[in-house]
Amino acid sequence: MNKLIHSVTVVTMDNKNSVFDGFVIVKDDKFHEVKQGTPSEYDKNQADEIINGSGKWLLPGLINSHGHLGSAFLRGAGDDIPLMTWLKTVMWPNEQKFTEEIVKNAASLAMVEMVKSGTTTFLDMYHLYMDKMAELAISSEMRTVLCRGMIGLCPDREQDEKIAESIQLFHDYNGVNKGKVTVALSPHAPYTCPPSFMIKVVDAAKKNGMWIHTHLAETKGEVDRHIAEHGVSPVKHMDDLGLFDVPSLIAHGVHLTVEDLHILCEKNVSVAHNPMSNLKLGSGIAPIPDMINKGITISLGTDSTASNNNLDLFEEMRFAALIHKGTHEDPTVTTSEMILRMATNWGAKALQLEKLGKIKAGYQADFILVNPNSAHLLPSDKKRVLSHLVYSAKGSDVTDSFVGGVHIMKDKELLSLDEEKIIFEAKAFQI
Amino acid sequence: MNKLIHSVTVVTMDNKNSVFDGFVIVKDDKFHEVKQGTPSEYDKNQADEIINGSGKWLLPGLINSHGHLGSAFLRGAGDDIPLMTWLKTVMWPNEQKFTEEIVKNAASLAMVEMVKSGTTTFLDMYHLYMDKMAELAISSEMRTVLCRGMIGLCPDREQDEKIAESIQLFHDYNGVNKGKVTVALSPHAPYTCPPSFMIKVVDAAKKNGMWIHTHLAETKGEVDRHIAEHGVSPVKHMDDLGLFDVPSLIAHGVHLTVEDLHILCEKNVSVAHNPMSNLKLGSGIAPIPDMINKGITISLGTDSTASNNNLDLFEEMRFAALIHKGTHEDPTVTTSEMILRMATNWGAKALQLEKLGKIKAGYQADFILVNPNSAHLLPSDKKRVLSHLVYSAKGSDVTDSFVGGVHIMKDKELLSLDEEKIIFEAKAFQI
Ligand SMILES: [Zn+2]
Ligand SMILES: [Zn+2]
Repeated sequence: MNKLIHSVTVVTMDNKNSVFDGFVIVKDDKFHEVKQGTPSEYDKNQADEIINGSGKWLLPGLINSHGHLGSAFLRGAGDDIPLMTWLKTVMWPNEQKFTEEIVKNAASLAMVEMVKSGTTTFLDMYHLYMDKMAELAISSEMRTVLCRGMIGLCPDREQDEKIAESIQLFHDYNGVNKGKVTVALSPHAPYTCPPSFMIKVVDAAKKNGMWIHTHLAETKGEVDRHIAEHGVSPVKHMDDLGLFDVPSLIAHGVHLTVEDLHILCEKNVSVAHNPMSNLKLGSGIAPIPDMINKGITISLGTDSTASNNNLDLFEEMRFAALIHKGTHEDPTVTTSEMILRMATNWGAKALQLEKLGKIKAGYQADFILVNPNSAHLLPSDKKRVLSHLVYSAKGSDVTDSFVGGVHIMKDKELLSLDEEKIIFEAKAFQI
Repeated sequence: MNKLIHSVTVVTMDNKNSVFDGFVIVKDDKFHEVKQGTPSEYDKNQADEIINGSGKWLLPGLINSHGHLGSAFLRGAGDDIPLMTWLKTVMWPNEQKFTEEIVKNAASLAMVEMVKSGTTTFLDMYHLYMDKMAELAISSEMRTVLCRGMIGLCPDREQDEKIAESIQLFHDYNGVNKGKVTVALSPHAPYTCPPSFMIKVVDAAKKNGMWIHTHLAETKGEVDRHIAEHGVSPVKHMDDLGLFDVPSLIAHGVHLTVEDLHILCEKNVSVAHNPMSNLKLGSGIAPIPDMINKGITISLGTDSTASNNNLDLFEEMRFAALIHKGTHEDPTVTTSEMILRMATNWGAKALQLEKLGKIKAGYQADFILVNPNSAHLLPSDKKRVLSHLVYSAKGSDVTDSFVGGVHIMKDKELLSLDEEKIIFEAKAFQI
């Protein structure tokens, strides 16, 4: 099955600032050709489907490397209150009441929001009904990393059950749907997982060839308490326990010492930057420019709608692009190219996904089309496209989305998700 | 001329958290009635036009209290570079080449972007062709505060000409179009206006009954240089020169001492907060929570697309809502209600505009309709509406806009601005 998409401005994210007018040929799930200019008659004859891009921008689909889809119905249920009050009065009591149906409907709503705003890949860390989530992921045709989030504050037998569930999820779903679904191991955080449990998780990761995703150093309080209890920072402690001997992605990394940064760099640990969630919960601002200078791979995440409160990666890019300039009082510490890489090929690397996040022959055909004909994206020229994508574009500018060559949104209409039904169900939900 | 808009969720911004299902009746340019429930047969019979709001959210039109429309074509022309490099290589050389046509087309593009993202009132500080801008403002039917930006680094005669131009603009346009256009005096900033010039401006303001808008304390460098040269902070200095004896709105206020805050509070000076521009240029983060605690009126501004790079006040609200929580590591320092007030009735107060920024009988009928049926605004209920507006809504969710009772956008179609022509002209522009 060959698709030819022509008359587009291609933003490759491959070489520095490579933006040109051209076309792409998709063969099955991968890019077959990416070229400047117009397609030949031969190219057209070979295509099963020809799509006129009408001058739109074609760029890699955006990658959301940290989130919790199951709690999406808690958007706006509690804001502007202290973290512990929020957890105790909003998150925990509500999550206890979540049925399978609520979690499925909430995750579906989150997927609609993500596709509509240009996300093609997401990581989901959640503790409920992850096998159902896997089925939803497959039918949505999105690229997904599934993590059964595990809290280790429980008896040994329960701990082992949680790990066994994670491994089962891996055996059942890792690599399915042409590799679009993968599975990682996910201890929730050092403050909810005692060292003995972390050791079990590392052991399971090594035995099964899984990688690890965890929350780490999100708040100052949590880091201070960890040091008080264990005598070392949570990053150093996790390294001592062997966590970083397995490929790892940590979410947040807001409160880090120089030694912590050194460990993350040495052990090739990636960091999912969630600027909006970190700001909204009052957690602080991660030292992203320092990490980039050290060569640490940075990806972007939205966290859940309960703490963000939206899943639009264009917004997340904007925050990541702007806040560090402001706190450093230096406009050069981030560039639009860096930020777009966080949301594309750096994101792919953080999620251990190969050949993803660039518009390039041999790469996964995950891409989106952006309508450049709105006032807020003008004037434009090739030199301004990256800037406009990072500093002015909105999720609502995305018109089309393809994942592994499958067309999942066409002219803003969802093809793999039943938007009308999902919105109807979200409207029916009452806290 | 009576308009009845029914079946809406009204967000009054009048009393605390007043959100209810109801209807509004607009008589000429003002709200005549704002009520819960459904309109009576009498109400319907009295109406010249009945609009079914179809469950949309009806809220005050957003107020952008600081911008420079004429330079809108420089969006994305230079990013991620130091401030002085940006001024010397991007802003100044390009602005020197601006013709009347470029400035008019740029301002028109900015107005399209603003209306489409929910702004009904804007302040424009610019130094070129402000009489043409006044004509554009009138034909757009937007509510506008016009300021002929004045740089005082010039001979006395030129200084006097600039002030005379400002006064002429005031006499020609203040109060026209049913009061939708007003005019203020605008010395650019203390670092571009010597004390002798500031004194002339204050004098002109007092003589003509005008208020003053100026940039103040935007960057640390500018404040340090001011203290080195004059021995006092720019805020203290401006107060000593009598600037704050006239009603005043300052843009930025990023670098302020405790004494400065005290002066702004005592003299009832309002502050236009431009978080995205301040971050992007590396200027820093204004001490907004401290100002709010002192009772200083805070409004929101986008600054120009050359330094933001968009004019969507929903984005500006989101930044204002989130960054202070992050830097203070305290989620309680801002609330969605505060932020929405900055963009509505606090904004009106900052711009010296009375009876504006609330959905309330007797107030100006400036309001917008927001479509609540998108995934990113669900689930919802009355208690979550303010949160969704601040933490998740996008400019693209706005479907309708009314200014002084005039319908200027209907189902996303602009009625007073020729969007197609304006976009065509923006596309034709080349640097
Ligand atoms: Zn999280
Ligand atoms: Zn300005």
